[in-house]
Amino acid sequence: MLKTAAFLVGLALIFNTQRRALVSSFGFGVANAVVVAKMLPVASPSMIKVGFSGRDVLKKDRPLLPETLGLITGVFYLFSLLLFIPFAFYHHLTDTFSDGQFPHHKLAAYLSAILSIQSMLMLGVADDLFDLRWRHKFFLPAIAAIPMLMVYYVNWGKTSIVLPPFLEMGSTIDLGFLYYAYMGAFSIFCTNCINIYAGLNGLEVGQSVVLGVCVLINDYLYISGPPCPVMDNHLLSTYIMLPFVLASLPLLKYNWWPARGFVGDTYCYFAGMVFAVVGILGHFSKTLLSFCGPQIFNFLYSLPQLFHLVPCPRHRMPVYNEKTGKLEPSRADVSKCNSAVKTVLRALAKFRLIRVWEDASKMEVSNMTLINLTLVHIGPLREDHLTMVLLSLQFAWGILAIILRHQLAKLIFGA
Amino acid sequence: MLKTAAFLVGLALIFNTQRRALVSSFGFGVANAVVVAKMLPVASPSMIKVGFSGRDVLKKDRPLLPETLGLITGVFYLFSLLLFIPFAFYHHLTDTFSDGQFPHHKLAAYLSAILSIQSMLMLGVADDLFDLRWRHKFFLPAIAAIPMLMVYYVNWGKTSIVLPPFLEMGSTIDLGFLYYAYMGAFSIFCTNCINIYAGLNGLEVGQSVVLGVCVLINDYLYISGPPCPVMDNHLLSTYIMLPFVLASLPLLKYNWWPARGFVGDTYCYFAGMVFAVVGILGHFSKTLLSFCGPQIFNFLYSLPQLFHLVPCPRHRMPVYNEKTGKLEPSRADVSKCNSAVKTVLRALAKFRLIRVWEDASKMEVSNMTLINLTLVHIGPLREDHLTMVLLSLQFAWGILAIILRHQLAKLIFGA
Repeated sequence: MLKTAAFLVGLALIFNTQRRALVSSFGFGVANAVVVAKMLPVASPSMIKVGFSGRDVLKKDRPLLPETLGLITGVFYLFSLLLFIPFAFYHHLTDTFSDGQFPHHKLAAYLSAILSIQSMLMLGVADDLFDLRWRHKFFLPAIAAIPMLMVYYVNWGKTSIVLPPFLEMGSTIDLGFLYYAYMGAFSIFCTNCINIYAGLNGLEVGQSVVLGVCVLINDYLYISGPPCPVMDNHLLSTYIMLPFVLASLPLLKYNWWPARGFVGDTYCYFAGMVFAVVGILGHFSKTLLSFCGPQIFNFLYSLPQLFHLVPCPRHRMPVYNEKTGKLEPSRADVSKCNSAVKTVLRALAKFRLIRVWEDASKMEVSNMTLINLTLVHIGPLREDHLTMVLLSLQFAWGILAIILRHQLAKLIFGA
Repeated sequence: MLKTAAFLVGLALIFNTQRRALVSSFGFGVANAVVVAKMLPVASPSMIKVGFSGRDVLKKDRPLLPETLGLITGVFYLFSLLLFIPFAFYHHLTDTFSDGQFPHHKLAAYLSAILSIQSMLMLGVADDLFDLRWRHKFFLPAIAAIPMLMVYYVNWGKTSIVLPPFLEMGSTIDLGFLYYAYMGAFSIFCTNCINIYAGLNGLEVGQSVVLGVCVLINDYLYISGPPCPVMDNHLLSTYIMLPFVLASLPLLKYNWWPARGFVGDTYCYFAGMVFAVVGILGHFSKTLLSFCGPQIFNFLYSLPQLFHLVPCPRHRMPVYNEKTGKLEPSRADVSKCNSAVKTVLRALAKFRLIRVWEDASKMEVSNMTLINLTLVHIGPLREDHLTMVLLSLQFAWGILAIILRHQLAKLIFGA
């Protein structure tokens, strides 16, 4: 009943009498969220039947849950992006269609965004299906970014970046081919940074929703201000991000503790690509990177274990304590490390960047992920409370980045 | 060795010194064919492992073969279409890039073609994976056609068709919304017509290759002639069709009798969408329909059984005769039909449109498919010989349609 009403409100917003594209975009998001919420429980048994399933190891009874549910969100989200096309260009169709003023380059950019997101969704499903090797899947996002890079090349070919005046190297510098390498690397970063900061119910979708809200706030600051040359970029970003955030909400609820299903690599990759697309086509990739502070910290903090300077167990997720029902930091056995490494680890423990458990025969440290570090600082937490803390951190960081970005930019580049 | 050489020739053609887009397109097709040929045997075990497999029931030992191999052709084909973008627009990038003359509307059309094909590939995989119900999958092609229809709407919005002068109703008639319904229906037809004219090793890919060659011949007649307004449409069609035909050839070889793997619904849908896309964006959907004579005949001929006027067994494929190793027409038991139906069936048998086996207690007819009808006329055939006959028929019909189209058009519409 409530859902039907929400769906009808969504439809009314899509076909709003003033034909405002932004309102239509919001309407698509609302209607879509209702459809996704309805489809998730319907699709779950089919997913398990096909073999898309996994155990939730942080629960007492380790239930078998459907996987790859990000596919449902992804497919309906893409569907709404496609149906939105005539609404995005409505005013051009009615007012200036006959003068040949139609902005085909904007349509091409929008289509390339959809193509890249859809390509990543396919590659994500392929990964969930065939369990691709790490060295193959690492580069998949760069492949999925090709449509966007091709259109970037033929549409703008602009590969120069603005330099701050104090460098005294001229106002811009042309990076040429390097700029495409940068965009490819940016896509790889966006998709993998969500995928490695994961493992708790609600964390993958939650961080995506929080990042999406930060992007929308930043877009709003441009769109609501006086007309400026980058306004169109931020409108495009909003058209892509707004329905994404809304279509992710029902998945977040479904995946929230205690989860009824997992989102799969499919969601992490596909969500990462949505961010890569708005960052590149909206020309604010550096701002977007600044929102990803927790993800970047998590990645850098993980490096000693990823490079095996510190022993790295196969799974670094927190440990479920059956008695308390809470999560505790998981540990790596560092007894066999040489004394220099041990000294460094003890020093890090002084700064509370790690926790050390040591007795005469054995030395253990907490695994180096932001999730474990949070447990080290706050103490054992129930899974959903831990997710909540991490998402709050993400949001606070994002807001701080927005404030700094808009204040610092004035300082560095002038008003 | 030979494959490496072919791959290098493909690369040389892509980066041909004269920067001819058509030569690059051919080069992509050649290089792609080599990659697909190499990937098919590599991917086959993974496909079986994931559950994409089926038995070849028209063989003595009914071997288990990998399914859904059309996915391999499809993914690499899409990949080559994306990488082709800068080559397609090379002359615009170098000559007139700075004057803002870049043909963004053509880029948008090309991107929408890729999007529709990719959407259909995804839906095809979903069908092979989840075994969708017939009433759901029937409309999938119309959904996959949405990107193209949206771009058609904002790009041209032209929904009028040219009328022949003798109707005396004016030179054109605007079909409005009906034209979009027509394009949706056309997509549904193209994808399903290949899917229901199937079941023999090599038939699905073979008919697609033959249809593709007919489209290319028709395109060539326009491209090689004097400059005309529709030349660009046929260039676009060639850019899409040429690499498709070439990437399908290794799959045809792999699927040829005795097949080492099946192409899956994935290939039938995806190939059908390639035809729908060139028909719509190339503005020659009616010509394309005329090439599909055998498919249309097969569909109409099947109707009495599809509507259960004549009993329809679950499978209507020919029957494998273990003694001769040849295929014979499969039969439907019509003993329980009323006498009117029996009379009609006996009359059809007189015109050799069906075969009847009748004795005192039982009456059987050959199942009403073009495949069985061919066996009725020619007699039992080995599977590959039957496929060969059907493909020859397809090619002969296509050539006839091209000749008629170019001669008849002059008669009806004037020169």
